[in-house]
Amino acid sequence: MSDSPSARASRTTGTVRIVGAGLLGASIGHALRRQDVDVVLADVSPSQLRLAIDYGAGRDARDDDRPGLVVVAVPPDVTADVVQAELEAHPEAVVTDVASVKLEPFTELRRRGVDLTRYIGSHPLAGRERGGAISARADLFIGRPWVVCRDEETRAADLAVVEALALDLGAMPLEMTPQEHDRSVALTSHVPQVVASLLAARLASAEPGSLSLAGQGVRDTTRIAASAPELWVQILSANAGPVVEVLDALASDLREVSDALREPDAPGARRTIADAIRQGNEGVSLLPGKHGQNRRFEQLIVMVDDTPGQLGRLFGELGELGVNVEDLRLEHSPGAQFGLADISVAPDALRGAVEGLEARGWRIAGNTND
Amino acid sequence: MSDSPSARASRTTGTVRIVGAGLLGASIGHALRRQDVDVVLADVSPSQLRLAIDYGAGRDARDDDRPGLVVVAVPPDVTADVVQAELEAHPEAVVTDVASVKLEPFTELRRRGVDLTRYIGSHPLAGRERGGAISARADLFIGRPWVVCRDEETRAADLAVVEALALDLGAMPLEMTPQEHDRSVALTSHVPQVVASLLAARLASAEPGSLSLAGQGVRDTTRIAASAPELWVQILSANAGPVVEVLDALASDLREVSDALREPDAPGARRTIADAIRQGNEGVSLLPGKHGQNRRFEQLIVMVDDTPGQLGRLFGELGELGVNVEDLRLEHSPGAQFGLADISVAPDALRGAVEGLEARGWRIAGNTND
Repeated sequence: MSDSPSARASRTTGTVRIVGAGLLGASIGHALRRQDVDVVLADVSPSQLRLAIDYGAGRDARDDDRPGLVVVAVPPDVTADVVQAELEAHPEAVVTDVASVKLEPFTELRRRGVDLTRYIGSHPLAGRERGGAISARADLFIGRPWVVCRDEETRAADLAVVEALALDLGAMPLEMTPQEHDRSVALTSHVPQVVASLLAARLASAEPGSLSLAGQGVRDTTRIAASAPELWVQILSANAGPVVEVLDALASDLREVSDALREPDAPGARRTIADAIRQGNEGVSLLPGKHGQNRRFEQLIVMVDDTPGQLGRLFGELGELGVNVEDLRLEHSPGAQFGLADISVAPDALRGAVEGLEARGWRIAGNTND
Repeated sequence: MSDSPSARASRTTGTVRIVGAGLLGASIGHALRRQDVDVVLADVSPSQLRLAIDYGAGRDARDDDRPGLVVVAVPPDVTADVVQAELEAHPEAVVTDVASVKLEPFTELRRRGVDLTRYIGSHPLAGRERGGAISARADLFIGRPWVVCRDEETRAADLAVVEALALDLGAMPLEMTPQEHDRSVALTSHVPQVVASLLAARLASAEPGSLSLAGQGVRDTTRIAASAPELWVQILSANAGPVVEVLDALASDLREVSDALREPDAPGARRTIADAIRQGNEGVSLLPGKHGQNRRFEQLIVMVDDTPGQLGRLFGELGELGVNVEDLRLEHSPGAQFGLADISVAPDALRGAVEGLEARGWRIAGNTND
């Protein structure tokens, strides 16, 4: 893995103090320890702290610690408190936090009159379904965007300290204002969460048997509805303004489609519905694809028996054919002992993939150049 | 493929007439021809008809054709017209249709006073992103639910004819009333489509750069927004009643969360938000999993280089370890030359998979038993 952080020298120097030894804090600790950075851990929970230290994410604090960087990795609702305390306790250190909302802690600190020269809010776009020190992993941040919020007071040297942290962890630093960040995550993360949850909640009131018609579409649309309520209440409350703005716009769009459907033969009704679907086409095409590009891939669908080794044989033979798999989705046929592997490949690789697989006896259920 | 329809004798006897040689009609034709059933094709478009026949989905109609079964596979807005014409033209035949809404054609036919004794509406839950005879495939229906709508007038022998068709195509017949069917697809297909489209449409108004924070969540939530507008206008309009009912409930749920977020510190506000997320947890857990069961799998996440053959090696080695891959998701790290393969396995296979892969040099980025 040529991109692995352990393969290059650390840019982070001196001691790093991490407050909050949960998933993010402990993961940062593990990654820095792999690069021989001195890491001090702190947590309000002695057992969480002990676990993180036992797993190798850092060491206990000492009175003579002089961290150059403090990373606050605590829940959003206590972020401002902890940032303020750390700025006061470590007057030489740059202090950053990793909370998933950026304006609220900043505003709250400013309201309290805290000098924010050494504070640089940040947010690594990384996470896992399970939290806690026990789920931490050193490679959690590799390849992920890591938003860094500078303002006019920020000194270039301090900004460089936080960006070096992101780079050391394999992430990609991305400068934004707190406002830009919060509007962006409202749109790309917080509102999708609310929508997926509410849509999934509707399924709970379904008549018996009616969910047997559920296919891949509703499954994908509701997947993230499995997220933990406690954390999301905090995130949504802390980013309420931007989230409400998008939710209200969405509720009004919903009403418009709903009104059009109430009288589908009224003038303009079908056009309203078609426009909604068409604008959706446009929006989804704007999402960055693999490697941050909007590349278009071709797809082929291969039938795969549900036995060990079948996917291995398929991907092994694709490798022999020199075909790189750009994306992949397994579809299941309820009740059947096989699945459909929906494979994305570069356009110039499609023909060779289809012909090569067919020659080796695979059943190709379809491809986008049919 | 032991489940393939060509491996068993056909239950469908006599000539089958298929009206509409698009994706569904031509796919049914291909599957029946593989079982040596005599298939007659008809389509308003001579070129579509010629294509389907050239590809082997059936033959041209003759004056002396006496079909025992007519399958109407035309767009929803002309289904009632064609069903009526076919019932009149073939007074001995059972007539079914495959439209994705079931009450509207039935009500329309009844309104016209058509004798519906020989008509049995049906709906195979199958499709592809591309339509047309050219995208047809014999295995389109394998393992999919195929709803069959009986009523009091339906004769058991006629019902058996339509169910035999579904079984011959590898689908699973499922009896429902037209109302049950339409409410079920409103909830599990039509409303998710509207929601995904409207959410994706919001992305189109994003500030430049803000979509760079988009992750797998919003990608999944909006994937089906890539669907074709024309067909969806017809489907939504034809099932407007049940769709409006769910959309209105959803819009009201959205308002409730939005109101709670406007004053997150008001009494009960956080509880409203938490309840929405929690009910979403419950709803998503009700979706049938692979093989129609709500089985829980364990997951492991493996880092995979972005070069041909890597996935092949991974799945090949999982096969050697005797581990069956139950589900699979590739996550991309924007800007990085590798991905994360999120693999679901049976709980008793997790430990062997993790240890075996690690012994072979794979980097396991995490697993659900961490």
